[in-house]
Amino acid sequence: MPPGSLVHIGDFDEEETRISVIDYGRIDLEEPVVETVEDLLKFREKDSITWVCLEGLKNVEITELIGKYFNIHPLVLEDILNTHQRPKFEEYDDYLYIVLKGLSSGENDSSSVDFRVKYEQVSILVLNDFVFTFKERKDDLFLPLVQRIRNSTGRIRSLGSDYLTYALLDTIVDQNFLLLDSMDEQVDDIEEELLTNPTSDTLVAIQRLKRELIDIKRATSPQRELLSAILRSDHELISEKIHIYYRDVFDHVLRITESVDSYRDMLGGLLDIYVSSVSNKMNEVMKILTVFASIFIPLTFIAGIYGMNFEYMPELKWKWSYPVVWLVFITLPTVLIIYFKKKKWL
Amino acid sequence: MPPGSLVHIGDFDEEETRISVIDYGRIDLEEPVVETVEDLLKFREKDSITWVCLEGLKNVEITELIGKYFNIHPLVLEDILNTHQRPKFEEYDDYLYIVLKGLSSGENDSSSVDFRVKYEQVSILVLNDFVFTFKERKDDLFLPLVQRIRNSTGRIRSLGSDYLTYALLDTIVDQNFLLLDSMDEQVDDIEEELLTNPTSDTLVAIQRLKRELIDIKRATSPQRELLSAILRSDHELISEKIHIYYRDVFDHVLRITESVDSYRDMLGGLLDIYVSSVSNKMNEVMKILTVFASIFIPLTFIAGIYGMNFEYMPELKWKWSYPVVWLVFITLPTVLIIYFKKKKWL
Amino acid sequence: MPPGSLVHIGDFDEEETRISVIDYGRIDLEEPVVETVEDLLKFREKDSITWVCLEGLKNVEITELIGKYFNIHPLVLEDILNTHQRPKFEEYDDYLYIVLKGLSSGENDSSSVDFRVKYEQVSILVLNDFVFTFKERKDDLFLPLVQRIRNSTGRIRSLGSDYLTYALLDTIVDQNFLLLDSMDEQVDDIEEELLTNPTSDTLVAIQRLKRELIDIKRATSPQRELLSAILRSDHELISEKIHIYYRDVFDHVLRITESVDSYRDMLGGLLDIYVSSVSNKMNEVMKILTVFASIFIPLTFIAGIYGMNFEYMPELKWKWSYPVVWLVFITLPTVLIIYFKKKKWL
Amino acid sequence: MPPGSLVHIGDFDEEETRISVIDYGRIDLEEPVVETVEDLLKFREKDSITWVCLEGLKNVEITELIGKYFNIHPLVLEDILNTHQRPKFEEYDDYLYIVLKGLSSGENDSSSVDFRVKYEQVSILVLNDFVFTFKERKDDLFLPLVQRIRNSTGRIRSLGSDYLTYALLDTIVDQNFLLLDSMDEQVDDIEEELLTNPTSDTLVAIQRLKRELIDIKRATSPQRELLSAILRSDHELISEKIHIYYRDVFDHVLRITESVDSYRDMLGGLLDIYVSSVSNKMNEVMKILTVFASIFIPLTFIAGIYGMNFEYMPELKWKWSYPVVWLVFITLPTVLIIYFKKKKWL
Amino acid sequence: MPPGSLVHIGDFDEEETRISVIDYGRIDLEEPVVETVEDLLKFREKDSITWVCLEGLKNVEITELIGKYFNIHPLVLEDILNTHQRPKFEEYDDYLYIVLKGLSSGENDSSSVDFRVKYEQVSILVLNDFVFTFKERKDDLFLPLVQRIRNSTGRIRSLGSDYLTYALLDTIVDQNFLLLDSMDEQVDDIEEELLTNPTSDTLVAIQRLKRELIDIKRATSPQRELLSAILRSDHELISEKIHIYYRDVFDHVLRITESVDSYRDMLGGLLDIYVSSVSNKMNEVMKILTVFASIFIPLTFIAGIYGMNFEYMPELKWKWSYPVVWLVFITLPTVLIIYFKKKKWL
Repeated sequence: MPPGSLVHIGDFDEEETRISVIDYGRIDLEEPVVETVEDLLKFREKDSITWVCLEGLKNVEITELIGKYFNIHPLVLEDILNTHQRPKFEEYDDYLYIVLKGLSSGENDSSSVDFRVKYEQVSILVLNDFVFTFKERKDDLFLPLVQRIRNSTGRIRSLGSDYLTYALLDTIVDQNFLLLDSMDEQVDDIEEELLTNPTSDTLVAIQRLKRELIDIKRATSPQRELLSAILRSDHELISEKIHIYYRDVFDHVLRITESVDSYRDMLGGLLDIYVSSVSNKMNEVMKILTVFASIFIPLTFIAGIYGMNFEYMPELKWKWSYPVVWLVFITLPTVLIIYFKKKKWL
Repeated sequence: MPPGSLVHIGDFDEEETRISVIDYGRIDLEEPVVETVEDLLKFREKDSITWVCLEGLKNVEITELIGKYFNIHPLVLEDILNTHQRPKFEEYDDYLYIVLKGLSSGENDSSSVDFRVKYEQVSILVLNDFVFTFKERKDDLFLPLVQRIRNSTGRIRSLGSDYLTYALLDTIVDQNFLLLDSMDEQVDDIEEELLTNPTSDTLVAIQRLKRELIDIKRATSPQRELLSAILRSDHELISEKIHIYYRDVFDHVLRITESVDSYRDMLGGLLDIYVSSVSNKMNEVMKILTVFASIFIPLTFIAGIYGMNFEYMPELKWKWSYPVVWLVFITLPTVLIIYFKKKKWL
Repeated sequence: MPPGSLVHIGDFDEEETRISVIDYGRIDLEEPVVETVEDLLKFREKDSITWVCLEGLKNVEITELIGKYFNIHPLVLEDILNTHQRPKFEEYDDYLYIVLKGLSSGENDSSSVDFRVKYEQVSILVLNDFVFTFKERKDDLFLPLVQRIRNSTGRIRSLGSDYLTYALLDTIVDQNFLLLDSMDEQVDDIEEELLTNPTSDTLVAIQRLKRELIDIKRATSPQRELLSAILRSDHELISEKIHIYYRDVFDHVLRITESVDSYRDMLGGLLDIYVSSVSNKMNEVMKILTVFASIFIPLTFIAGIYGMNFEYMPELKWKWSYPVVWLVFITLPTVLIIYFKKKKWL
Repeated sequence: MPPGSLVHIGDFDEEETRISVIDYGRIDLEEPVVETVEDLLKFREKDSITWVCLEGLKNVEITELIGKYFNIHPLVLEDILNTHQRPKFEEYDDYLYIVLKGLSSGENDSSSVDFRVKYEQVSILVLNDFVFTFKERKDDLFLPLVQRIRNSTGRIRSLGSDYLTYALLDTIVDQNFLLLDSMDEQVDDIEEELLTNPTSDTLVAIQRLKRELIDIKRATSPQRELLSAILRSDHELISEKIHIYYRDVFDHVLRITESVDSYRDMLGGLLDIYVSSVSNKMNEVMKILTVFASIFIPLTFIAGIYGMNFEYMPELKWKWSYPVVWLVFITLPTVLIIYFKKKKWL
Repeated sequence: MPPGSLVHIGDFDEEETRISVIDYGRIDLEEPVVETVEDLLKFREKDSITWVCLEGLKNVEITELIGKYFNIHPLVLEDILNTHQRPKFEEYDDYLYIVLKGLSSGENDSSSVDFRVKYEQVSILVLNDFVFTFKERKDDLFLPLVQRIRNSTGRIRSLGSDYLTYALLDTIVDQNFLLLDSMDEQVDDIEEELLTNPTSDTLVAIQRLKRELIDIKRATSPQRELLSAILRSDHELISEKIHIYYRDVFDHVLRITESVDSYRDMLGGLLDIYVSSVSNKMNEVMKILTVFASIFIPLTFIAGIYGMNFEYMPELKWKWSYPVVWLVFITLPTVLIIYFKKKKWL
């Protein structure tokens, strides 16, 4: 398959592409039903902001047509369709291209075993008065934002496509905090399990979480570069006064990166505890064995002595021999038990 | 909840906001009782320095009004109220915004188990002749500074809002040294415990301290950037001649960062000792078992031989057999004990 | 052997050098059979792109002649022939020199034991309208690219030698993704083996993979510098509008580097699991031993008591002694087994 | 205690401050006895270099007066008196301030247990033709330098205060080499102990050395910044032609930093050996136990068989039974011993 | 000993200094016998390149005289004689000073135990048409280079002192590849030993190699800085067209640095294997013990039952008791052995 031909490469079952459009200005708001890419062209003349959200990447021809009508570089289209992109920010003459990963904690039931992070690639194309978002899946990620545009007569409605882009990035990045919260619970659960009843399952859980963290780190740490590239950029599509909002997202990204790093340190600590508690357990087993063996092996030897069949064993005939031996049988273990208690083995 | 609406996000029980004001110049000092934000407006005309200290962030409307009257950016107000900020320094045209964490070692009784660091977010707004501080809790953190302003007729009274800001930062940063001192005691306690009587509780204590350190590092290491950003800044609100004071705080921050790093190294070392001492203990247990088993198992076998019931066992009838066997019973363990002593197992 | 004399240094069995040439323009395409270096000279006058692919480095004189006719620096010729080069990019007045490693996963049968990465040095000389590639071995690496040139009437045919160079780099770099996929399978296989049946072979497999990763890292991480050097370069042989393609390869290189790093982390995690599971196994063995010993050693002692031959042992004559002793023989182990079950040792 | 008031903060018992002065030029040398700070003022007019060495920081008023007469910033005076400074270099209009740590290996008897590094803060104030040094303790650190000034008619006498400062730094930094030499001995001692007879004391010694290294690193690594700051500085008090000398000290500092890092690596290696040798020892103990148990437990069982009291046990009556059993008693252990020898357990 | 007096500080037995000189141009070549430093002066007027090689540093006065006649800074002379220098490159007005370490793998017999790297300090003074090399020892390091100058009529004879310097650096750096090859063999040997028969000697060998690597790293990693400093330099003694050669050496240095780092990783991996294989061995020992004990302890108990002397033990009188007990003696171990085989302990 030669480079240059557009193909969708992704892990999700192919879903039919759904196009939804919001066209808004300070006063007006329109949510037209759009069937074909050509329907979008009329919004080009309008002065209002048009946000086109595509969910599902199966219908490659839609992306191709958008590329054609809006004059997007073929490599950008390829990147939109290939969902294994590294988060990045690219400036072109007439538009900006942003691609990053939306992370969600998967199923609602966040039980210890099923914790799996879901990754969805989100591409954002920022043009003058036009914003395209390409999502792999149909979900409610941007619903709150849509509501805010519908209801609000405030900030978002009076600012341009750069503010909308900020709002999109903010939504995607802030989702990570939810993820980290559920990560936090996981770590606490494992820690408690370790201190009460560590099993080899706990080890598997630690390892699984560690792998998840490696993946999360790979998805989130390039966001740092991405945002600092946006902040450094002096592209005319990002106005100076919106910079402060991007700086705010940048701070969030920094906090997330630091959190991920500290969770890693914590998991390393949990592994140390696991190894130590396994050693402790073995110690305990060894102590039980040693106590039993040390008490009964000498006694068995004594009993063995008087089980010998020599003809000349004077003790065998003495009347008090048997009670004396019992005395030994009782005092010897008592002494040893006191000794082991002193050593804190019992 | 859309961005743009101010809400208090924090971990502390909501306390009613308390406003206290000191207005001072080289000669005059006034501590007016302030009920409403409007009461502050009259100080704007005065040439003196006005320090407004707000404790407790519950009454969001107070922050909102300050924002309105003093023309503060909404994002800054959001950051003041959301107490999960990363320490940072932001420059605006008319004011500076500093946010950082005040650390205190919690309860007075710094017993090994209850060691918990308390984090309080402190926001500082520096305007021309005006300084606002927003604290999450009511405590005595700034009391010494208030006293110095009241008593002093010296440096602090004759310098501007930039020096007051330095004094605030200095107070917050130097608090960390107290924390590190109590950390030092903790580490020493654990080390002694490790060398005398390591238990699994010691491991838990090490792990807990490690987690605290991870949190402390997250709270303190961005202070480094914060202060170097202040030092790099050429904002007119920070005069050149005050730079040397900020450089002093910067040095303190560097020392704290280095201390935190070295405590981490030390805790890593303690964990190594713990693991080794658990191994050592197991070694000891094994030696006891081995000594007991190696001595008595052969003896029991010998006793077993002469407990056999064969008809033709000539030794059974010899008169000296029994004493000879006793001789063996005594010499064999003696030899083994000497051998084990040589191996330093006893 | 003095520096300055050209010698082939490499690990592959010397193969006869094979020269293949494609000369193409927007419309025409020619694949002449070339026997001697002199045959290439006529293409110098033509305006079309000429790609000369040399496979096998045995015939040193060919490289020498190319150097002579195309005015290549002797050190570059040495680097082409010595196949232990670090990937790098060098700019000269009239040409560019790129050297990097092509990685392939060796045999088709990617069984756990035989996983060996094969490294092949590929040198690329980029002149105006001329591209030379020097490969160590004859293989199909560039076959898809040759096909694309033959069939395509599109991008590749209408662009210059810089685009061809991009296509070559893209081919070499993207090969690594295949390698990482098979690496992925390996890691998963080992992980499953670890959780089901870890043997010392598993350890050897982990170690072998670790060494492979060290080598892969050494081969791929300089590619990052290489591509950022190309992107920084303003050599006239790389036109501005092709930069976006190199940036695309750069992104791929970044993804590969990050993957390699995360595989390393994962292998570190596998080693931790291995060590822990060995400890767990020992724990299990110790428990079995302890259970057996703790149950039967006391019983043996009791049997030993009544095997003693004292004359005055009243119990021996009682009728119910034997059944009572059996009762003890049955209850004692039952109690111990319940105890061990509670401790989860059984 | 408000900032701004000068207080001595330090770990050493307060010693009375001793002032010693050397005033020297190319030809003349004077060592006046100085009682009060005022006595120093007359040297200000002289063209010669005046080196004032203060030992002991108890008499705060002396430092205060020097600050007053020589116009030193109050923060610098605070830093001189507070002996917990991070090594640093600060430039002021009329003077330079350098503070760093002098390290010495404590007691003469460098026995393994008592190895403690002593840290002394040395502050250097460099003015035009004036150099002040503030030392915490009275010792012979600068004695060789004093001798050189007294005797020499060479380089040091003909160069300015910048060369004297170099000589002071050189003296302080080179002292570290002595320390590292004794560190070297320590590491070698521990390594030998580890290979011959590792005890838990060895572990404690490793840990202690590790902590010392953490402290040494904290004291020496900022010297690197310090000297590169001096080299970058273009302050008129450091003339261009003296730079080469500072670069020499810089090289020494680099060597020290690298040595400290490599000692750390070595100590990490020693810990690995310790842990491994503890495991090895346990292995040895287990082998002894296993050999004893495996040999005698089967034999005891055999003896037990013929200790049974069944009426119908034909072997009991055979004449050769007893010798045959003895044969078994001898061959069985022999076989096992050969087996264990083969496994290299004996 | 005051700084400024020249003394030889080094680890080698003092050897008498040997001076050898080659004076060469494009056509002429002269190898005069030189007794005194004064003999060198006449070559200053000649236009040809003069290479003066001093081997052995004992005769300090020779270095001193060279310094005097060729106007070398005293600190450079000190650095030449003190053989504990960090590799570095220093530019002076009229000359360049390069110092670095020549590494050789010591004895010819590279047996596992005797592997010791030998370090020799080589100083290079580059003047216009004059190159001095100062070596600690007399060896054949530069012999191939001498031969090339003698025989060659090519590149080296037609280029200046900068090319000769390149050739010297190239010779010294490329020697490291030989060292790394023998390191490679060592690592392979140890790895094989680990997988077949790990002993505590293997651990010592790993540790020794680790220490060697730490030293090699310290000697080679500053070469990187050294060469990048040469490449950055625009000193007139290094002409632009020779830069490409230095870049070549730089690449070699990078390869060496990367190799050293990867050997370190490998040794870390070997240590992990060692620890694991010790654990594995202990596991094996424990299994043997557990199998023996678990089989024979129950049997001994059964034999013990029928060794009891109760009067009323009906089984004792039954005819088939003894064979039945034997049946138990045979089936019980069989069952256990099958169980242990299933658990893969046998």
